[in-house]
Amino acid sequence: VDFLKSFEELSSIGATAEGGVDRQAASEEDGLAREWLRARLIEYGATITVDSVGNLFGLFLWTDDAPFILTGSHLDSQPSGGRFDGAYGVLASLAAAQRLNFEVQSGVSAPRYNLAVVDWTNEEGARFQPSVMGSSVFVGSLPLGEALASRDTSGDTLQKALQRIGFLGPEAGAKATISITDVVAYAEIHVEQGNRLETTGANIGVVTGSWAAYKYDLRLTGEQSHTGATPMADRRDALLAAATVILGVNALTHGIPDFHTSVTELDAGPKSPNVVACLASMHVELRAPTLAVLEGAEVQLLQLMASVESELAVAVSITRQWHRAPAIYWPAGVVLAKDCADRAGLSCQFLETISGHDSIALNSVVPTVMLFTPSSGGWAHNSKELTLDPDLNNGVDMLTEVLRALCVGVVET
Amino acid sequence: VDFLKSFEELSSIGATAEGGVDRQAASEEDGLAREWLRARLIEYGATITVDSVGNLFGLFLWTDDAPFILTGSHLDSQPSGGRFDGAYGVLASLAAAQRLNFEVQSGVSAPRYNLAVVDWTNEEGARFQPSVMGSSVFVGSLPLGEALASRDTSGDTLQKALQRIGFLGPEAGAKATISITDVVAYAEIHVEQGNRLETTGANIGVVTGSWAAYKYDLRLTGEQSHTGATPMADRRDALLAAATVILGVNALTHGIPDFHTSVTELDAGPKSPNVVACLASMHVELRAPTLAVLEGAEVQLLQLMASVESELAVAVSITRQWHRAPAIYWPAGVVLAKDCADRAGLSCQFLETISGHDSIALNSVVPTVMLFTPSSGGWAHNSKELTLDPDLNNGVDMLTEVLRALCVGVVET
Repeated sequence: VDFLKSFEELSSIGATAEGGVDRQAASEEDGLAREWLRARLIEYGATITVDSVGNLFGLFLWTDDAPFILTGSHLDSQPSGGRFDGAYGVLASLAAAQRLNFEVQSGVSAPRYNLAVVDWTNEEGARFQPSVMGSSVFVGSLPLGEALASRDTSGDTLQKALQRIGFLGPEAGAKATISITDVVAYAEIHVEQGNRLETTGANIGVVTGSWAAYKYDLRLTGEQSHTGATPMADRRDALLAAATVILGVNALTHGIPDFHTSVTELDAGPKSPNVVACLASMHVELRAPTLAVLEGAEVQLLQLMASVESELAVAVSITRQWHRAPAIYWPAGVVLAKDCADRAGLSCQFLETISGHDSIALNSVVPTVMLFTPSSGGWAHNSKELTLDPDLNNGVDMLTEVLRALCVGVVET
Repeated sequence: VDFLKSFEELSSIGATAEGGVDRQAASEEDGLAREWLRARLIEYGATITVDSVGNLFGLFLWTDDAPFILTGSHLDSQPSGGRFDGAYGVLASLAAAQRLNFEVQSGVSAPRYNLAVVDWTNEEGARFQPSVMGSSVFVGSLPLGEALASRDTSGDTLQKALQRIGFLGPEAGAKATISITDVVAYAEIHVEQGNRLETTGANIGVVTGSWAAYKYDLRLTGEQSHTGATPMADRRDALLAAATVILGVNALTHGIPDFHTSVTELDAGPKSPNVVACLASMHVELRAPTLAVLEGAEVQLLQLMASVESELAVAVSITRQWHRAPAIYWPAGVVLAKDCADRAGLSCQFLETISGHDSIALNSVVPTVMLFTPSSGGWAHNSKELTLDPDLNNGVDMLTEVLRALCVGVVET
């Protein structure tokens, strides 16, 4: 089966008018994409298993009782996301597994390990928080109960949503299972979501490390008043305070090249043209390669909150609800990936990942290889997201090389 | 009937846990308040008529074919409004009419004009826009069709909402009607919504003029991107642009004492923690005693929009959807009110109204008297809104004096 044709088929599930996809975690569209993947996996000879947080695995069982090389990404998307984010990685894993299975079945190779393809539940964290959910539960860094109890804005739990689409495992009498202790190594490929590869012209990115992130919930409480009659000096405008926070959080990055911040999900009210808002809530993120930058920025952030409180008479409640430590990826895996690129005739570039990926969760417990393909124009979380066909094919070739090497047994158990 | 007890009764309709009311225009609660008022008017001897935009009138018909002195305010409120805004004026009008009717019925006075009490539809402009709607239609400055077609956020039209609560007139075979050509003069009392009277200790405010206002719809269009991976310099963050606008609009007032601005109803999206917002919309208001200030500020506002477009790469669409010219109130009415205050033993203060009122619509076509009672703490559009009992009673006495004088015939037709 032609990879590009398969990708087109998958991209039609939850397709948006803008050329992207809306396949939020455990939505009807996510369910359809999962069914599509499950059918392909079965067709290519895999045994299906779904775990208790909805992660969908296709197991290629070549050697009895052997542990697994695991590969995959996620089919869920942002509300108006691109076609490539996550889905490309799942499909590349599927295509690589199909090739390797063909080699095994035809006697060309006799791998030491079995291979498993995975679609992780809710990587995006758009509908349910936190992000990177399914892989975090799989590695044991997020409690299963917390993940299943996560609610979307309509009040639905992830558990109910997964049940509704038929992907809440484990099934009674499942033929096979997989847990983190069965995994020898993990490999994932993803579109870069930036323009570093496009700028240098490299075919493949090999990820050497991941940035740290601090994420905050912020709530501002002022006082409702009249947009006309209330004197300017007497107002306690939560929206004015929110604007001060937004510009202040942006200004934290000034003069620091490797430091990204953002404010999103602003909600301010009550919403009436003549009422000064008394409540504003928002989500704040700080991301940098080292904790030192984030720790310094957090001090500045808290100073900003103090000045908002004293100067705008608006009460501030700020909670760091999440953080991610920086990490380096498996050094031997980086060398392995470079060798594979050389063998496949692809140029490669070492870089860090700024955004979160399921591989970050896996990298904390097993040897992990993370690969990027170029993103044309650097678009990310946007329906304009694009990776060109030759880059898509190069990525599949590269991932196949890496998985072949891993399955043969470069990692000792 | 004791005025304060009546006011307590009315305040229980749509009462909120915070001690305010939620009686948005043409809501079920507004309907209940209207029914309550209609019953009181009938009980006190008035003939009821409802016009085609839902304004509810109680006519005290003392002299055949005589024109009317009109008095009233509005029963609708902000989503979490105070008990006094509007409702106090309607109830004070009702109480004054009851006293004057008693005087007429008992032969103490023989007025030249009839008296009408009115509850204007949708003064607040919270659920349906624009504000000051019913009185504007009544004086002919807002087309009826436009008012009835106004939609709330759920898509309901005012027409449907009025029908639902049974206050879309005129009724077939109504006993009496009233139109602007029947009105000799208008008088309204309202809580001040600021702290000028509280500061000076005056019992009554007599309004000499109204501020000008410009109101804008503003829409910012950036580009959706990734809060992690997208380089800061490549983002086109609509929420960052909105924050720049909010602070810029606030800064317009710096150093200008009589100039109020506000940004409200901010909506930004898409709402996902990891997505840089590409759309933001908001409502912007500028208010000042003279057009010169607003015209100057508008030039600055447009400069701000141009700098947002060039510096943040976010497209701006701004529409001035509404403006209100400044006005002076009927000078002879101001003198009349001062005389009435003296007669009632109340101290009075001349001041301008900053916020919009139904009296502004009436003042553009008929002699109009506008009175304020003190607002304790200056709270407005807030459930903490408060006018003390003695001030409530003073206001009713004052309005009664003014209406008695008007009914006797100080204004020539």
